[in-house]
Formats: sequence, structure tokens, C-alpha cells
Amino acid sequence: LLAVILLVLTGYWTGHLLGGFAWDGSEQQFNLHPLLMILGLVFLHGDAILMFRIFRKENKTVVKVIHLVMHVATLICIVIALKATFSYHRHAGYANLYSAHSWIGLLTVLLFFMQWVGGFVSFFLPWLNSDKRAELLPFHRFFGIAIFTMACTTSLIGLNEKLFCELSSDYSKMGTLATVGNLLAMVLVAFALVVGFLVTYPPYQRTSVPDIEKLPLTQAASMRDFQSTDDDRVLEE
Amino acid sequence: LLAVILLVLTGYWTGHLLGGFAWDGSEQQFNLHPLLMILGLVFLHGDAILMFRIFRKENKTVVKVIHLVMHVATLICIVIALKATFSYHRHAGYANLYSAHSWIGLLTVLLFFMQWVGGFVSFFLPWLNSDKRAELLPFHRFFGIAIFTMACTTSLIGLNEKLFCELSSDYSKMGTLATVGNLLAMVLVAFALVVGFLVTYPPYQRTSVPDIEKLPLTQAASMRDFQSTDDDRVLEE
Repeated sequence: LLAVILLVLTGYWTGHLLGGFAWDGSEQQFNLHPLLMILGLVFLHGDAILMFRIFRKENKTVVKVIHLVMHVATLICIVIALKATFSYHRHAGYANLYSAHSWIGLLTVLLFFMQWVGGFVSFFLPWLNSDKRAELLPFHRFFGIAIFTMACTTSLIGLNEKLFCELSSDYSKMGTLATVGNLLAMVLVAFALVVGFLVTYPPYQRTSVPDIEKLPLTQAASMRDFQSTDDDRVLEE
Repeated sequence: LLAVILLVLTGYWTGHLLGGFAWDGSEQQFNLHPLLMILGLVFLHGDAILMFRIFRKENKTVVKVIHLVMHVATLICIVIALKATFSYHRHAGYANLYSAHSWIGLLTVLLFFMQWVGGFVSFFLPWLNSDKRAELLPFHRFFGIAIFTMACTTSLIGLNEKLFCELSSDYSKMGTLATVGNLLAMVLVAFALVVGFLVTYPPYQRTSVPDIEKLPLTQAASMRDFQSTDDDRVLEE
């Protein structure tokens, strides 16, 4: 629900209040940057992380594929969003990558890309055995959450920057653009807190081996066909 | 080490490049705001969280007192830092609390205060038994890290905002103020990542009951005097 409000607010803020979208080097083209970054690095990335919690009893390979596909979508969003900004800057004659927002954002994107390649090689390709994977998982997990958090942070920095650049001293008059922008910021913080909590709260963690003994017999039998993939050995068979 | 670099850079950026400190309603008074917020909510708060990791074999009550004292210091920093800003705004005729930075910052400070009171009542006063405490601990832990992260985020938003307000279109010329400001941002991100990793990496977690059996006898004896407090029962005796 928060995620939907987040997307609607972002769409309204960029698509309506900031003047809509285009791909002609104008300010409208720049508007794609916040929309796609929030759609990609915040919404899709955050939900991709949650997949292992929401489907914590389903076949792990299936969840992995969903996780991977969502991150491919994120990557596409990032590339278009960066392209939108760079080409807007070129048209408008602005310099690139000088602000703290851009430095942190660039670091975030670099880490995201490394994490993406690292995760794909380690957990998707059948090169590593399950011991090695278990060793790597805490790092993958930590950097996943860290990159998500950095993405939220960078979005908020950018949002605050955009509002100050756009409104200057009118910001404090709290017009619609300012109010919706600030609300968007608060919803983004709330979304980040909820994702962070759901992902880290110990009782919600994925149960690595479901206890077959305790299930009714019929369910246990169907379970046996369906799972036993949680240690990833299915990929090596 | 990162923490020290962070403080030195913050001190240099505010104390030298932004023109030093004062308490007369001038811009120099505002400079106290970033310095004290980073000193308090980022540096002291981050290190207070780390105390349970750095001293993960020492008497827990002692570590708790350190944790508490550091948070009292943080609270003092916050109060002075907020006071500095509000009174600067009054002198300069600026409105209060209109930007996304301020909304998120205010939420952070409110959560910090609630967390502080909640933590003091739950874990320091002898009102709750160890079962209740064990139940509350994951929440205290999550919000501690969340508030730390929000504090870092808000600092970075404010830093970016200050650089844009101060330099405007000169920001992209990358003078000393801009470069040091951006470096400060990167060090702050690195510090946040290191704290986040150290606090959450499972092997670094506090061992709740050290295994006395496996220690040499002499060490085991001295251990027995020193520990056995890890389940908090010492507070109830």
C-alpha cells in the first residue's frame, strides 16, 4: 500500500506538478530522472528484496528468478534515468556530477552494478557450492539493504535539491509542489522503514529447511516434491 | 579511523571554510548545526551502537551505562544544534521547518527521543524481566540502526542543500568548499556503511553466554567474576 502511494505521489509530482515528461533535452526530460530512479532503485529494488520474505515458503529457485528479473528492470530504469539527466545537462549547458547528490548517487549505482554482477555469478550461475553461498549470503544481504538505503538517501537528497532549485525562497510558502514533495519524502522514508523492518526482523526470516515431520502426511509429500531447494543444491544437480 | 576523519572534515568544513562559529544569530551560529548534528546523531550515536560490538565480551551493565551516557551526550548535541538553527532563522527572518530536510530531520529527532525514553524504561530501569526484554530487543535494535541511518540521510540532505544555497551555480566549479563538502559526504556514507556492517554481520554479534567450559581454567575463573550478566538478570537481583 505504501509502495503504491509512493508511486502515485512520485508520478503526480513529476508528471503533473513539475510539468510532465518528454525526451527533447528540456526540463520535462529531466523529470524522468526522479520518476525512474524512485520506480527502479527504490520501488522495484525494495520489493525485490522483500520477495524472499513474502514468498518465504515457496520454491527458492522461482523466487530467485523473480528477484533477478526485478533487478534487471531496475537496471533498465537506472540506465534510462541517468541518460535522461546527462543529456538534459548537455542541452542546458550544466556540468555533470559535481554535487554531493551525484557523488553519492554514482557510488550507489556502482555498488548496485557490482552487487548485481556478484549476485548473478554467485547465486544464479551454478559455479559455487552451497557452503560458499552460505558464506557469501550475509554480504549479499547487507549490501542489498545498504544499496537500497543509499538509493532512498540519494533520492531524498535529490528531491530536497530539486525543491530548493525550483522554488528557491518560495519553498517556505508551502505551495502544492512543496507540500507534495515533502509528503513524497515522508512516504519514501516510511516505505524504507517498512522494507528495512520486514527484511531484518528475525521471525520473518526465511526458514531454511521446513520441518516436514510436523506437517500432515499429504501436505508433507507434496512439500517434498516442491522444496528441498532451499540450500540451492538443485542448481548443482 | 573513519570516524576521526569524519569529525576532522566536519570541523574543517564548518569551522574554517564556512567561517567559524558564534552565538549571535549570524551564519556562524548556524554552522554549529551541522557540526553538532554530525557529532551527535552520526558520530556519537553510531559509536554508541557499536559499543555492544566492540565490547562484546565485557560486563553488559557497564556497556549499557556507556551506551546510555553517549546517548545523553547525543541528546545535548541535538538540543543545542536545533536551538542554533531556530534562533538563526529568527534573526535572519527565515521560516522554520518547511523543507524536506527539516521534515525528515524532525521525524528522526522525534524517533530518537522516543527510542531514548523507550530504551531507558525497558532496558535500564529494573521494571521488565529478561523475557520481555528479549522480545523488545529486536525492535530497539532495528530502530537504533534506522534512526542512525535517517540521521546520516538527513545530514547528507542538509549538506547538499547548504552547498547549493551557499554556492549556487559556483558549486560546479568545485572550489575548496564544494570539494571538502563532497568528500565529507563520501566519508559519512563510508562511516555509515562500516557501522551498519559491523552491527549487523552475524559473526560479530554479542555472544549471549560465553562458553566457560572451553576456556583455560584460570581464565574461566576470572571470567566467571566478570560476566554472567549477559541476560540482564543482574539488574533484577
